[in-house]
Amino acid sequence: MIIIAEKINGTRKAVKEAVMARNVAYLTALTLEQAEAGADYIDINAGTSPDRETEDMLWLIDLVQGLTELPICIDSSNPVTLAKALDHVERLPIVNSINADPARLESFLPLISERGCPVVALSLDESTSGMPKDTAERMDNIARVVAATRAAGIADEQLFIDPLVMSVGTDTNAGLESLDCIRQIKETYPEAHITGGLSNISYGLPNRELINRTFLTLAMMLGMDSAICNPNNVALIESIKATDMLLGKDRFCRNYTTAAKAGFDKL
Amino acid sequence: MIIIAEKINGTRKAVKEAVMARNVAYLTALTLEQAEAGADYIDINAGTSPDRETEDMLWLIDLVQGLTELPICIDSSNPVTLAKALDHVERLPIVNSINADPARLESFLPLISERGCPVVALSLDESTSGMPKDTAERMDNIARVVAATRAAGIADEQLFIDPLVMSVGTDTNAGLESLDCIRQIKETYPEAHITGGLSNISYGLPNRELINRTFLTLAMMLGMDSAICNPNNVALIESIKATDMLLGKDRFCRNYTTAAKAGFDKL
Repeated sequence: MIIIAEKINGTRKAVKEAVMARNVAYLTALTLEQAEAGADYIDINAGTSPDRETEDMLWLIDLVQGLTELPICIDSSNPVTLAKALDHVERLPIVNSINADPARLESFLPLISERGCPVVALSLDESTSGMPKDTAERMDNIARVVAATRAAGIADEQLFIDPLVMSVGTDTNAGLESLDCIRQIKETYPEAHITGGLSNISYGLPNRELINRTFLTLAMMLGMDSAICNPNNVALIESIKATDMLLGKDRFCRNYTTAAKAGFDKL
Repeated sequence: MIIIAEKINGTRKAVKEAVMARNVAYLTALTLEQAEAGADYIDINAGTSPDRETEDMLWLIDLVQGLTELPICIDSSNPVTLAKALDHVERLPIVNSINADPARLESFLPLISERGCPVVALSLDESTSGMPKDTAERMDNIARVVAATRAAGIADEQLFIDPLVMSVGTDTNAGLESLDCIRQIKETYPEAHITGGLSNISYGLPNRELINRTFLTLAMMLGMDSAICNPNNVALIESIKATDMLLGKDRFCRNYTTAAKAGFDKL
């Protein structure tokens, strides 16, 4: 399971304020708690206005790279910010994200292809619509993304495809449909990773974290092998370790038993 | 999800002592806490010696039936006890259990066929061996059970097939193999229920309840629709409700949201 730690995200008000105020203490704590909890990548989204996003992104990259050896997930829709960030990182990052929008593909793919880095591919087309309405539309968007990435020499195994799960709170069948979409992605692009945020699945419902981690267990059986999430959520990490073990991905149960002995909250 | 509540089981020392001492208060508490937690059936296993099992079973049936309207799961390997218990119950019970042992089938099937009640079918043959060694042996045992139940006029939908899960603690692939066995049962006998105890999967490992409930979530996606378990395990029941919802089995999320509002520990 590849965990992309989500907390350094300037679309959250407290983080944006901390970035603009250069609040090193606050952002250091966010970075270290995620690294210590077992993150594989630290996502960085500056979240600030276009005129300063690049500067904020580079400052955040310096801060995070001074604290941990973990690679970064560069979370920006701005190709200028992305290009500068790619020149600034010390280790191979993930780029977050591309989608079927031709303008996005045109500006992002040369940068990704040149560096050979992994990239999150959303199953939407922001040039024509917002959230896709069903699995067929998602698969169609992904097909167009993959046609473009393959043409740019980007291997399928560099892709982290995000199915953009729907809320079961607004549609009884949304869970089943999201799971079916994951199954189709795995069948169609067996070399690609499957990732995504989890919280949409539980939108509008009580006890959301229970729903999110239960969904992830089901999704993992169908091929989801990454999540953009909070690694400090102990119940989520417990659930991921148990699921990996039950799916035969933890030889001699070593990862699980080591984590359990340490206490799942002190990974 | 059909929950067969497991606590009134005389193979547990405290329960056996309570049965022999006619400790009504203790057994009343066990019955009511399971009924209030959402059990669908109350399993009764007297667990006492053959010379008194029938008398103890009938006494327990009277006690439970005086406390709840829930049907009983008659848990005995003794055909005399079973016959008397079947005459004694007020509501259609489940019989627990048959297996591929010809002697067991010969003595139990006429009683089951006559009453038209459901029956737990274990994937073993106690006349030749203990636990089956692999999925193929389990499927072979089940095939012989189903041949016999069909010949006796028992419909597949009356069956609660138990795959007898193995411990992932002794074999890294045991989780995957148990899940594959459940998938095969569902494919081969789509009308049958699939049930079982959960605790074997986590034998020898820490934080067993986490493993058990995570396994059940995975198993439910493959067709397991019943468990022989402790309904007072709040985390397990939470997990079952969330899984049912995610698998599209909870219209408008009513069951989940009602339970969450009430607090999962006060179902």
